[in-house]
Amino acid sequence: MMTDLIEHLFAKAFDNELLGQMGDATEITLAGMDGNRIAFTTDSFVVSPLFFPGGDIGELAVYGTVNDLAMRGAQPLYLSAGFILEEGLPMETLGRIVESMAFACRRAGVMIAAGDTKVVERGHGDGIYINTSGIGIIPAGIRIGPANARPGDAVLVSGTIGDHGIAILSVREGLTFETQIQSDTAPLNGLVNEMLQTTPDIHCLRDATRGGLASVLNELASASATGIEFDETVVPIRPEVKAACEMFGLDPFYIANEGKLVAIVPGEVANDALLAMRKHPLGLNAAIIGKVVADHPGRVTARTTIGGRRVVDVPAGELLPRIC
Amino acid sequence: MMTDLIEHLFAKAFDNELLGQMGDATEITLAGMDGNRIAFTTDSFVVSPLFFPGGDIGELAVYGTVNDLAMRGAQPLYLSAGFILEEGLPMETLGRIVESMAFACRRAGVMIAAGDTKVVERGHGDGIYINTSGIGIIPAGIRIGPANARPGDAVLVSGTIGDHGIAILSVREGLTFETQIQSDTAPLNGLVNEMLQTTPDIHCLRDATRGGLASVLNELASASATGIEFDETVVPIRPEVKAACEMFGLDPFYIANEGKLVAIVPGEVANDALLAMRKHPLGLNAAIIGKVVADHPGRVTARTTIGGRRVVDVPAGELLPRIC
Repeated sequence: MMTDLIEHLFAKAFDNELLGQMGDATEITLAGMDGNRIAFTTDSFVVSPLFFPGGDIGELAVYGTVNDLAMRGAQPLYLSAGFILEEGLPMETLGRIVESMAFACRRAGVMIAAGDTKVVERGHGDGIYINTSGIGIIPAGIRIGPANARPGDAVLVSGTIGDHGIAILSVREGLTFETQIQSDTAPLNGLVNEMLQTTPDIHCLRDATRGGLASVLNELASASATGIEFDETVVPIRPEVKAACEMFGLDPFYIANEGKLVAIVPGEVANDALLAMRKHPLGLNAAIIGKVVADHPGRVTARTTIGGRRVVDVPAGELLPRIC
Repeated sequence: MMTDLIEHLFAKAFDNELLGQMGDATEITLAGMDGNRIAFTTDSFVVSPLFFPGGDIGELAVYGTVNDLAMRGAQPLYLSAGFILEEGLPMETLGRIVESMAFACRRAGVMIAAGDTKVVERGHGDGIYINTSGIGIIPAGIRIGPANARPGDAVLVSGTIGDHGIAILSVREGLTFETQIQSDTAPLNGLVNEMLQTTPDIHCLRDATRGGLASVLNELASASATGIEFDETVVPIRPEVKAACEMFGLDPFYIANEGKLVAIVPGEVANDALLAMRKHPLGLNAAIIGKVVADHPGRVTARTTIGGRRVVDVPAGELLPRIC
């Protein structure tokens, strides 16, 4: 409810056609720049703990913003980094995080172009909070946006879901599994490039972060005024993630990912897109999971394991706080 | 010392020619955009208290980033806003801050184009922290940068100094003066436009925020490898700010401003620049306060009230924490 209130507050105060795009990044046409478009996005990272299996807040802060740009089909180029440090944060910890960001920038092919550091007193922060904003260039001809899904389109996911959320949860709860579950935090711009070479006509891209696959599908259905149907038996999930979800009583479709995307493409190129994804290391487990329909606009339904069909709603509030 | 350590850490990890510019905003030439340049900057705001005489964290967050862009001669266009909210922050407080940001955007002529909100538990924040990043376009022909000061140039300041820092300090200390000291928080892009129309050949611009006038002059002297001499008797200071500084034992030259800039222009156009500044409401008290010299490169000296000359050093650490 608080989220709704806040969104309403912001929408009312900052109402403009750009914020209304509701994408991961905002598409901007700069005056005097030959009609070229840039993508612009911002994200703050408050993940707890700072270090977790498969990554840390530094990598997350770089990949999170890189991915928001990539979801517009943009070539991510420049990032800013704003740090809010709590007094007493060990310099060694900060050093590890900064090194990790530098590594992540090299991996994603982006550059930190602007920075800022503020220090707050002990007890007024939580070690470190990081904001990254990012700029990318959208190549001519690319038209990717949440409102572009059309009946007949196919819905794809780039790999196993739920890994990030369960990795964080496991550390918090002090649980160990036979196989340690690793966060999937990764830069998706390379995978998107691979896809765009084969299928330039991608309709929608979205990374399934907070709220997981279910939230993303609902957002896309709602923004496009279409229905989405998927088959929950074909969504890739690691057995250990499935087991952890059962233990915690969580639905994996609502668990956050930090290196997985949902793509909606015209039905006739679905297989090409799938093959392109599988050619990339981050898309090895990609799958076609469903389709866009004209029925029940704004709603998402799933074919269940027992053959029935259920409505997959938006999550009621944040399931796991401080997941990113 | 911690600041030095952090800067060293960041410089080592993120070393690139863009961060090396050391300006308020970074100048970027985007590929495929006809050689046009954009300015990009980021700033986090952790000011305490959230509301103070003359402004609040919302206005500060907008103007701070607008001013960083304006200091590159850029036309500020788009801002992002990243909020870190502490659980329990009254919605009414958030509402006031957001309204204030919206007002500030209208005043500065910019648009919030991207946003993000994170919530942290009670005791892990301080009500609200705001990050704003900004994009502006640098008009052709404008070459403003901290390294551009040349011997013979004149040094100007756009108005009274120390207002913001003393306004914040007064609230914190619960002091009242006969005249309440107001923060000077304001968008400087209009003033810069006025100046550029008369004097397109501005060499350096810098808003005198954290560390005040003394820090800015030292940064410019250092970046340009020139000396700067100013006359402390001609620097505009409100009598009540001067009185407060005496009471607290503070040097007004080190006190933060949030709506004042330092300009360095060729000596022969100093008067034109001064007149242009005085034509704008935010430059009514502008003054020529000194000059750039070939002597003592990297050093700043002041002619004192008793006719002597003293070295004005960089401040040793942050005088007032959480001033912005």
